[in-house]
Amino acid sequence: METDVEVTRRSFMRGLGITGGAGIAYGAMSTLGLAPAAADTGGRTFRPPRRSDLLGAAQGDHSVVILGGGPAGLCAAYELRKAGYTVTLLEARSRPGGRVWSVRGGTEETDLNGETQTCTFSDGHYYNLGATRIPQGHITLDYCRELGVEIQAFGNQNANTVVNYRGDQPLADTSITYRAAKADTYGYISELLKKATDRGALDDVLTQDDKDALSEFLVDFGDLSSDGRYVGSSRRGYESEPGAGLNFGGDTTPYSMHDVIRGGIGRNVSFEFGYDQAMLMFTPVGGMDRIYHAFADELGGDVIEYGAEVRSMKNVPDGVTVEYVRGGEQRSVTADYCICTIPPNLVPRLAHNLPGEVIAALGAARPSSSGKLGIEYSRRWWEEDERIFGGASHTNRDISQIMFPYDHFGGDRGVVVAYYSSGGSQRAFESLTHKQRLAKALAEGSEIHGEKYTRDIASSFSGSWRRTKYSESAWASWKGAAGHGGEAIPEYELLLDPVDRIYFAGDHLSNAIAWQHGAFTSARDVVTALHERVAASA
Amino acid sequence: METDVEVTRRSFMRGLGITGGAGIAYGAMSTLGLAPAAADTGGRTFRPPRRSDLLGAAQGDHSVVILGGGPAGLCAAYELRKAGYTVTLLEARSRPGGRVWSVRGGTEETDLNGETQTCTFSDGHYYNLGATRIPQGHITLDYCRELGVEIQAFGNQNANTVVNYRGDQPLADTSITYRAAKADTYGYISELLKKATDRGALDDVLTQDDKDALSEFLVDFGDLSSDGRYVGSSRRGYESEPGAGLNFGGDTTPYSMHDVIRGGIGRNVSFEFGYDQAMLMFTPVGGMDRIYHAFADELGGDVIEYGAEVRSMKNVPDGVTVEYVRGGEQRSVTADYCICTIPPNLVPRLAHNLPGEVIAALGAARPSSSGKLGIEYSRRWWEEDERIFGGASHTNRDISQIMFPYDHFGGDRGVVVAYYSSGGSQRAFESLTHKQRLAKALAEGSEIHGEKYTRDIASSFSGSWRRTKYSESAWASWKGAAGHGGEAIPEYELLLDPVDRIYFAGDHLSNAIAWQHGAFTSARDVVTALHERVAASA
Repeated sequence: METDVEVTRRSFMRGLGITGGAGIAYGAMSTLGLAPAAADTGGRTFRPPRRSDLLGAAQGDHSVVILGGGPAGLCAAYELRKAGYTVTLLEARSRPGGRVWSVRGGTEETDLNGETQTCTFSDGHYYNLGATRIPQGHITLDYCRELGVEIQAFGNQNANTVVNYRGDQPLADTSITYRAAKADTYGYISELLKKATDRGALDDVLTQDDKDALSEFLVDFGDLSSDGRYVGSSRRGYESEPGAGLNFGGDTTPYSMHDVIRGGIGRNVSFEFGYDQAMLMFTPVGGMDRIYHAFADELGGDVIEYGAEVRSMKNVPDGVTVEYVRGGEQRSVTADYCICTIPPNLVPRLAHNLPGEVIAALGAARPSSSGKLGIEYSRRWWEEDERIFGGASHTNRDISQIMFPYDHFGGDRGVVVAYYSSGGSQRAFESLTHKQRLAKALAEGSEIHGEKYTRDIASSFSGSWRRTKYSESAWASWKGAAGHGGEAIPEYELLLDPVDRIYFAGDHLSNAIAWQHGAFTSARDVVTALHERVAASA
Repeated sequence: METDVEVTRRSFMRGLGITGGAGIAYGAMSTLGLAPAAADTGGRTFRPPRRSDLLGAAQGDHSVVILGGGPAGLCAAYELRKAGYTVTLLEARSRPGGRVWSVRGGTEETDLNGETQTCTFSDGHYYNLGATRIPQGHITLDYCRELGVEIQAFGNQNANTVVNYRGDQPLADTSITYRAAKADTYGYISELLKKATDRGALDDVLTQDDKDALSEFLVDFGDLSSDGRYVGSSRRGYESEPGAGLNFGGDTTPYSMHDVIRGGIGRNVSFEFGYDQAMLMFTPVGGMDRIYHAFADELGGDVIEYGAEVRSMKNVPDGVTVEYVRGGEQRSVTADYCICTIPPNLVPRLAHNLPGEVIAALGAARPSSSGKLGIEYSRRWWEEDERIFGGASHTNRDISQIMFPYDHFGGDRGVVVAYYSSGGSQRAFESLTHKQRLAKALAEGSEIHGEKYTRDIASSFSGSWRRTKYSESAWASWKGAAGHGGEAIPEYELLLDPVDRIYFAGDHLSNAIAWQHGAFTSARDVVTALHERVAASA
C-alpha cells in the first residue's frame, strides 16, 4: 500500500542477499511459457481444497472456527467451504472486510478517541479508508474474477497532479505538475550524462558504440536540443492548451538545472516504478469492500456471525474452544481447528493458553499508524479548474498526499482523500478531533491547490487505524526487520506454524504486508496446511 | 494520437523558436489562478453562440450547410444550433463520427480494395478503429461532460506489457516487460551519472551541494546499491509473485549495462512523457463513437442527412449551393454559409469554384497511412497468463504495437488490437486482404507474446484509413512543415480564412492533428468567426 513499505521491502531483500536470482524478468519468462503464472504462490501452486480430498480419507465432518472477517478470514472460509468444511466465522464488526473499509453515506463509527462520526456523502460516493488499489500481479484480481466483482483502472499516476514540498530548498512551496517535474528532471540528468560521456569521463566503462547508443537514448529521454542541452519541452505542458489555427498554446520555461536538482522536485517519481505501485493499477467499481460483500454472499448467512467479540481462544483436547460475546450474550464455539486472523497486536488481550514465546512473537509485529480523511466537494474543481482526472498530488506536509476520485468523472460532485499519511505524519492527525483533522487538512491542502480547496465542501469523514476499534493498527512492522517480510526473523517464522490446532493468518505473515494479496496468500497457505493435515489424519 | 506526431510537433515548435515562452508550468499557473483554464482556446475563450446575439442584430433566419459528420462537423452543427441557426449536415456514411469509428458486431464495410468485411464480435465488445484515447487537457472531455458521455481510464502505459525489438542488437527478439526495461535503463543511467559526478567530471557545472542532491536523487531513481551500482531491483518484477510465509518470490537478474544500452530496450519509455500521451488518459465507456451518437441525438433527426454524398460545393451570390446524391437521387441545398469538413485530400474531387490557390493549399495537407486490426479472443490469455490488464506492447515490427482491451476485465473474451501502425509500417498492411493482414499480424504478434497468440481467435476485423471510403487518409501531414502544425506554412494559413462563404474546419487546421480536440477547436474557431460575421452583418 505504501511507498515506504516498498522501499523497505527492497532494502530488506537486498540485505538478505537475495538480489540476483537465477531468473530473467517474470514477464519475459511467462511470455515464453517458462514461469508459473504470476498468481502462483512461489514454488507451490495453490490448489483449492476439494471435497473429494476428504472422501474416503478423513472420516466425518471437519469444523473450523475462523476469527476475523477481513481478507484473510473470509478467504480462508471461502476456500474451506469448497471442500465442505463446517465453518464458523466470528467478526466483531457489523460488516465484512476488516481494514478494507469503504466509507459512504450512512457509515457510522465511534473511534477510540470516543468521537462518533456519521458519513453523509451523496449516494454513490465513497472512499476507501483502507485498501484502495490492486496491482496486476496480485491474486486479489483473481478473486475479483472468481467472485464476479467488476474492476476498473485506479489512477495511481497522473501527469496533471502536482508536487509541492515545504522547506528551504529552491522551488519550495511551489506547486509543480508531475509532467513538468519529470520533464525538467529527466531533461537535466540526460544533459548531464551526455555531457559527461561526451567529455570521455566514462570511457573506461563505455565503448564508443555504447556512447553513441546512450547519447541517442538520452536525447530522446531528456528531449534534448540538437546541441545536447535541455531547454524545455512540450512534455511540461503549455501556457494554455494548443488549439486550432494559430493557437500554438505557448511553450513554458523550464526551471533552472540548479533549482531542479537542489529543489528535489523529482524526488517522488520513483513511486511510479515500484513493483506494486506501477500502473496499471485497479480497484473494484463501487468500493474495495465489494470484494468482501461478495465473499460474504458466497458464504451465505450461516457462516458469518457479525457483532461477535472474541474473548477467549484456547486449544482443548482435539479442538479449539472460542468464547465470544454477541448481542450482550456470552457464547462459545468449539471446532476441530481455529484460524486466527485477529491483528497480532490484539491477540494477547484474549484469554488464551498460547505459549509465552508465541505471545512474544506476536509482540514483534508492531502496530503502525495510517489514516485518511475524505471530503465530498459539491464541485469537481480539480477537473474543471486543473484538468486533474484522478491520481494524487504529493507533498512532504503531514497530509502526504491528496488523492482525487477515480469515479464519477465529469459529475457534479466527488470525494477527495485530503490526506493519506502514515508514521509520524499520521500521528500528527490521529489524536485530533475530526474537526481539527479537517482544519489541518484544509490548511495544508490549500497551500497546494489554492484557496478553492476550502470551498464547496459538502461533508467529510476521517479515520485513523491506530484509533479504530478491532484494528488499532494500519499494518504490522516487524521488530528488527529491515523491511516488511520476516524470513530472517524468528518471531515471524514461529507464527507460520500452528500452535496445536490454532493457525495464524493475515497479511502480517506475508511478504505483501498492507496488501490484500498478503492476506489472501497467507489464508491459502493455512488452508492448504490444515487441509493436508486433515486429509492425512484419516 | 501518435508518438511520431508528438515528436514532430515538438521539433516543429522548437524549429520556430517558440521554446522558452514567458510562462511557468500550466498546472502551477492554474493552481494559482493565473492562467486560463486548460480548455480555453489560447488567448480567446470560446463562447458558444447564443440566440440573443442575433436578436435585433442580424435579421431573419440564418442557415449553414455543414459537409461531414465527423468531430468538426458535428461540433459546428451543435454549437450553431445553440443560437438557432438552421443547420443541414450532410454525411456520406450511414453513421456519425467520421474517422472516429468503433467497430462492433454488425459493423459492415467495403474498403477501396473492394473487400467487404462484416464484424461478428460478441455483444458489448468492440475496438476503436480511429481515435481511441483522450488526454486530460483536451476539450473532448468537456464535450463528454456536456453531452453526458460516461468516460473511463484508458490504459496508455502498463508495466506488465512488453517491448520486443527485431534487429542485430543485444536483446533483439526478446520480450521484456516495461517494468524491467525501465528499471534496468534507469538503473544504469543513474549509476553512470553518479559515477561521472563522483569523479568530478561535471565539477564545472555542479557544486558539491548540487552533487550531493543529485546523488541522493540518483540512488532512488535508479534503485542503486549502497556502493552506487545498479544490481537489480524489485521494480523489474519477481521470478514468481511473492506471497505469504517464506515465499519471497525470488528476485530477477538485470540485463548487463552493455546489453541495456546497446539493445535500446528503453527506447520507447519517452512515449509516456508526451504531452498528449501521459497518463492519465481517458476514453468513453462503450466506444469513442458514443460521443458522436450523443451529438447526433442532441441535434435531433432533422439536421443530419446520412448517406449524402456531396458532389459539388459552390459559392453563389449570397450563399453556398451544395449538390449531393442521396438514395440514388440528385439533391441540392443552398444555405447562407457552408462549413466544409470533408478531408482536404477529397475536396478537390468535388465540383467547385474555389480559387486555384485554395486547391493548391488543400493539396499541401498530405494524406497519411494508418490502420488497425482487432481480434476477438475467446480467452483473455493476456490477463490469465501474463497479468496484463490493458496497455500496449511495442515493437519495431510492422504491427508496431499490440493494444489490450481496457474493458471487460476478468471476463471470458476480449478484443485485442493486433496492430496500430502508421506510415511505412501501415503501408505493409493496407494493400493486403484482411486474411493476409491477419496472418501477418499473428506471425509478428506471436513472436512477441508466444504461440498462444494464434489460438482462441473468435473473429477479426481490420481497417486502413487510406483504403477507407470518404476518408482515404488517417490524418494530414502538411507539406514542408517539420511537424503537424502549419503556422509557418502559407497553405495552412490560407485555409484558415473562408473562401467567400465557405469555411474549412477539421483537425488538419489545428495544432492537434489526429486528435478530436483539433477538430473541435477548429470547429469552434469557425463557428465563432461565422457567428461574428452574421451578427455584424445586421
